[in-house]
Amino acid sequence: MVVGEVVGNLWSTKKVDALSGARFLLVNVADKKPGTAKTWQTRQIVACDMVGAGFGEQVLVVEGSGARVVDQGEHVPIDATIVGIIDSIDEQ
Amino acid sequence: MVVGEVVGNLWSTKKVDALSGARFLLVNVADKKPGTAKTWQTRQIVACDMVGAGFGEQVLVVEGSGARVVDQGEHVPIDATIVGIIDSIDEQ
Amino acid sequence: MVVGEVVGNLWSTKKVDALSGARFLLVNVADKKPGTAKTWQTRQIVACDMVGAGFGEQVLVVEGSGARVVDQGEHVPIDATIVGIIDSIDEQ
Amino acid sequence: MVVGEVVGNLWSTKKVDALSGARFLLVNVADKKPGTAKTWQTRQIVACDMVGAGFGEQVLVVEGSGARVVDQGEHVPIDATIVGIIDSIDEQ
Amino acid sequence: MVVGEVVGNLWSTKKVDALSGARFLLVNVADKKPGTAKTWQTRQIVACDMVGAGFGEQVLVVEGSGARVVDQGEHVPIDATIVGIIDSIDEQ
Repeated sequence: MVVGEVVGNLWSTKKVDALSGARFLLVNVADKKPGTAKTWQTRQIVACDMVGAGFGEQVLVVEGSGARVVDQGEHVPIDATIVGIIDSIDEQ
Repeated sequence: MVVGEVVGNLWSTKKVDALSGARFLLVNVADKKPGTAKTWQTRQIVACDMVGAGFGEQVLVVEGSGARVVDQGEHVPIDATIVGIIDSIDEQ
Repeated sequence: MVVGEVVGNLWSTKKVDALSGARFLLVNVADKKPGTAKTWQTRQIVACDMVGAGFGEQVLVVEGSGARVVDQGEHVPIDATIVGIIDSIDEQ
Repeated sequence: MVVGEVVGNLWSTKKVDALSGARFLLVNVADKKPGTAKTWQTRQIVACDMVGAGFGEQVLVVEGSGARVVDQGEHVPIDATIVGIIDSIDEQ
Repeated sequence: MVVGEVVGNLWSTKKVDALSGARFLLVNVADKKPGTAKTWQTRQIVACDMVGAGFGEQVLVVEGSGARVVDQGEHVPIDATIVGIIDSIDEQ
């Protein structure tokens, strides 16, 4: 999984039926440069929200086929799901 | 999922039978550079269109095995599908 | 999917049984730099050929689990398959 | 699989039910620059721990759908699992 | 699939049961810079060996779910398998 930050909403009216009712959030995923605290590159993805995440919150995102292993998600064409809101990260 | 822009069509006559009738669109996917509005690198992919997307439209693309979770797509060798046309992105 | 160019053959005698008879082609996949026509980075992969592609031809390549959704490919350990020969790309 | 180093813990109270009891560890994955011993880019991921890994330990991480091929992991939305603690790497 | 070079062994005593008896090899995967013969970035992965590969040998590696489509590999948490030893590459 990756740690991301919710930075926006995405609206789509014309979409495949299976995505009806899905809530799409824009999420920034950051990779780190070795030996520094700097981010190296930001990857922006669109994830389905399963936990009621809001703007600015740090979230846990599952990508790939695992994104569909959620309530009634098996037959939904998605590849990224927000599965948790992060309380804290204890990095040493 | 990722946000992409439709930039072209791709034609293939000689292809595996399961892809007969598929509509292939060329899609530019952009990654962002941290702390700026600039794109860092563009990745160009070919996606199957399921929603009637046109040139220049911003679309929502599902990649990986999720791309096959669409009408009759289970047995089609694809790894990227356009599942929605984007109305708007509300980024903060 | 991605657009690639066939640049070579790969020969392997000692391989797992399920790959007997498979035809491996070396394919260059190119990513583009934003706002230019330049390629940014080339990724070289090995793909199984299902359409009789030849040297120098532009081909459509499916990666990931979708690569196995081809004739009798379900039980073959592959992750990239050439599923079409490209006639033309109409990029705008 | 990739070699990673455990660099932290991640806590999430509000998460999907299937992740109850999961132990999330922050793992740094390093890619190498060709011809040198230097790392080029660090990718930081969150992995589920299945072997009792601790801070600073070098671990073996499985990503993608393989991450769910562990005890009772089939129906859990994850995409990275620590499946082993590394004793030694014999690189030549 | 990708072409890699075996550069080492990896030992792990404390691992999930399903990996008992697995042989882990360290493999360097190289991406090429466009228009040159130079490698651009090396990615180092850990792959399960199914063909008896040795140090310095060029091997064919399958990644993702395809890595588990090997003898009794279906229920093993892996994401990269060496499925062939490369005899020669005929690049033009």
